[in-house]
Amino acid sequence: MNSSEFRRRGKEMTDFVADYLDGIEGRQVYPDVQPGYLRSLVPSTAPEEPDAFEDIINDVERIIMPGAASPACTELETVMMDWLGKMLKLPEAFLAGEAGEGGGVIQGSASEATLMALLAARTKVTRRLQAASPGLTQGAIMDKLVAYSSDQAHSSVERAGLIGGVKLKAIPSDGKFAMRGSALQEAMERDKVEGLIPFFVVATLGTTSCCSFDSLLEVGPICNKEDMWLHIDAAYAGSSFICPEFRHLLNGVEFADSFNFNPHKWMLVNFDCSAMWVKKRTDLIGAFKLDPVYLKHSHQDSGLITDYRHWQLPLGRRFRSLKMWFVFRMYGVKGLQAYIRKHVQLAHEFEHLLHQDPRFEICAEVTLGLVCFRLKGSNKLNEALLERINGTKKIHLVPCHLRDKFVLRFAICSRTVESAHVRLAWEHISQLASDLLGAEKE
Amino acid sequence: MNSSEFRRRGKEMTDFVADYLDGIEGRQVYPDVQPGYLRSLVPSTAPEEPDAFEDIINDVERIIMPGAASPACTELETVMMDWLGKMLKLPEAFLAGEAGEGGGVIQGSASEATLMALLAARTKVTRRLQAASPGLTQGAIMDKLVAYSSDQAHSSVERAGLIGGVKLKAIPSDGKFAMRGSALQEAMERDKVEGLIPFFVVATLGTTSCCSFDSLLEVGPICNKEDMWLHIDAAYAGSSFICPEFRHLLNGVEFADSFNFNPHKWMLVNFDCSAMWVKKRTDLIGAFKLDPVYLKHSHQDSGLITDYRHWQLPLGRRFRSLKMWFVFRMYGVKGLQAYIRKHVQLAHEFEHLLHQDPRFEICAEVTLGLVCFRLKGSNKLNEALLERINGTKKIHLVPCHLRDKFVLRFAICSRTVESAHVRLAWEHISQLASDLLGAEKE
Repeated sequence: MNSSEFRRRGKEMTDFVADYLDGIEGRQVYPDVQPGYLRSLVPSTAPEEPDAFEDIINDVERIIMPGAASPACTELETVMMDWLGKMLKLPEAFLAGEAGEGGGVIQGSASEATLMALLAARTKVTRRLQAASPGLTQGAIMDKLVAYSSDQAHSSVERAGLIGGVKLKAIPSDGKFAMRGSALQEAMERDKVEGLIPFFVVATLGTTSCCSFDSLLEVGPICNKEDMWLHIDAAYAGSSFICPEFRHLLNGVEFADSFNFNPHKWMLVNFDCSAMWVKKRTDLIGAFKLDPVYLKHSHQDSGLITDYRHWQLPLGRRFRSLKMWFVFRMYGVKGLQAYIRKHVQLAHEFEHLLHQDPRFEICAEVTLGLVCFRLKGSNKLNEALLERINGTKKIHLVPCHLRDKFVLRFAICSRTVESAHVRLAWEHISQLASDLLGAEKE
Repeated sequence: MNSSEFRRRGKEMTDFVADYLDGIEGRQVYPDVQPGYLRSLVPSTAPEEPDAFEDIINDVERIIMPGAASPACTELETVMMDWLGKMLKLPEAFLAGEAGEGGGVIQGSASEATLMALLAARTKVTRRLQAASPGLTQGAIMDKLVAYSSDQAHSSVERAGLIGGVKLKAIPSDGKFAMRGSALQEAMERDKVEGLIPFFVVATLGTTSCCSFDSLLEVGPICNKEDMWLHIDAAYAGSSFICPEFRHLLNGVEFADSFNFNPHKWMLVNFDCSAMWVKKRTDLIGAFKLDPVYLKHSHQDSGLITDYRHWQLPLGRRFRSLKMWFVFRMYGVKGLQAYIRKHVQLAHEFEHLLHQDPRFEICAEVTLGLVCFRLKGSNKLNEALLERINGTKKIHLVPCHLRDKFVLRFAICSRTVESAHVRLAWEHISQLASDLLGAEKE
């Protein structure tokens, strides 16, 4: 949507809201629809080509307004998560469908999704162990529980361990910064010998530091065999899996119990919108279901409806699936794929420019929209370069450490980025590097 | 703001956003401001009288845009939480000020605030016990930890206990549905004899069921004496404390370690916005602080800035203090007080109508905007009445249980509610009651 259409549509939306409020007394306070009403009113998959904005707005009046906030808010979310799951070609078991055991939910952030998965896994293993040995206290079990992630996993995974009160161990990643099955197996065997109970693994697809990918096809079978919950954190990279040429990066998801990525990161959906799927919704719900009278409703035992309050930490919810609905329809799957592909191509363009300049080295494989690079030389030199880049305030880079190396990260992430921006950024970096290297020589 | 002004301002905002995006390449990617820049640019308290919308928008360009998303997002939040704390006349210790040890943070919901408080308390007591007995495992401690809340507390408190892996015990409330000091003391003494470790108490001001108030002045000193963390959940009632005539309901807050209420419930701020204050920010931060390289920044050890990511469960944050800023300035403190007072007065109007009808009884003291009532008679009768009321879909009531009684709850909560709506609702309820009682007689 270009600027002039945005102005027109934004003003129409303002009138839409004002008209709604002006006429609110004419509306019923409670909808007439029956649980499950919405699924039959929307297609079962996202459109390939963009829909007209007019049609989407008309559908808001036709489909959403009769279902008011409830159940429309819940039902659109379930259907949108199915749309998105199908775009990613997630295994059927993760979809809600009409009577599936799995399904998706919008969380606020990948941190919360990891925490929910860890808590569900903790409850599940605790119940299993207490069923076998009724005398075991929860504390005694928690002292022995151990979770694993790659040493490249996001800090929120470690934090989930702290909150959940369980040990989290970092598995040393390989030369490509990936967690491999053998390293996980080794750590686990060692821990079992010491009497610990491995119960939870977080595999990362697209790490924050360098966008590396844990080996799902190795890690997955180990988790299944050892009855450990496998959670996949693909916060950034997940969006790319809607492109057939990147879908192989998700191979092995069939071994997982839960999967999460953030459409707010790279799929044009505004923050916050973190998409999480589980294979068995009862695992999540079972961990935290409490039903006071003021939250009871007549449909809750019908199996027809989803009570998302049991799927997440907060009780209240926003109508976040609306923004997914608008984005998926306004771009169409092809539009979103084109957006991802353009970013990946621009990252490779930057990679190519680096390759031609012998002063620089590339520090990790460029798979998606992130390029990790540095000047050949000391960390101090690269810290100085970063300081110059960020000090000039024309572009902004966030660094990382890869092993003992201080590394700069060039991330393609703006909605409106073009090749010209990448070339400008490169010229800027290249010039600052020349200045710095010149100053070093003096 | 009336409908026609809303239309005008909404359209101006659309242009504001479009202009920003059209001109984005002319802006610097990183701000020039120094940490702490914002506090000096805004008043230290909320205005008493409404500000002009024009002035607020001009301040966005003058104060927010130069600070971009960071640090403006953080700094406005700290200052708005101070504004709000002062509106409530919170003890100085809860305010951030220039160098305070406390401060406020916006959480998504009261559930998350309760959980954060419980986790901070759990970490604090665990560290204290492990310092005294280094051999104690976390699990052994957690098996003994016990938290308390009233039997009228919200279900999210019980859920926080489940997530935190600690026992949560319900203290029997008194005849006015309040948790009293004596009942808490009794439960605690009994638990200590059994070797348990009391560490955390949630006091509710304005319970969900009937808007009852735990006795802070009794419970507070016990918590302080026994070194238990006291968290206050005033999710709904908290907004009323900005009125001097309701401020006494908060007396005893000086004993608390953390305090929370939801401006999104009754202060005209859109969902979500849950305001939480702590006396010692290090208690919250200490529990979860992790600092990977990609989240480091040059100011983090200066003490000048607040890293809210350590104060909450998710890592990412929205710019929620903007909506507080707009609401506080567009209404002024007096406007917000008038809004609260009007709702309370309308609740009393409904109470008065009930009093005049001998078929009904009022089931709990009407303090704020909630009226708990029922037909004198069986629960079955009242369930039938509720079914008729909600079935007609002209108004919608959510019930509760008070002890063994099924009770209807009439809540004043719409922004545009007037006396005429209350009278219409009453006539409707009264008529349905007559129909029901007539049908019963046949």
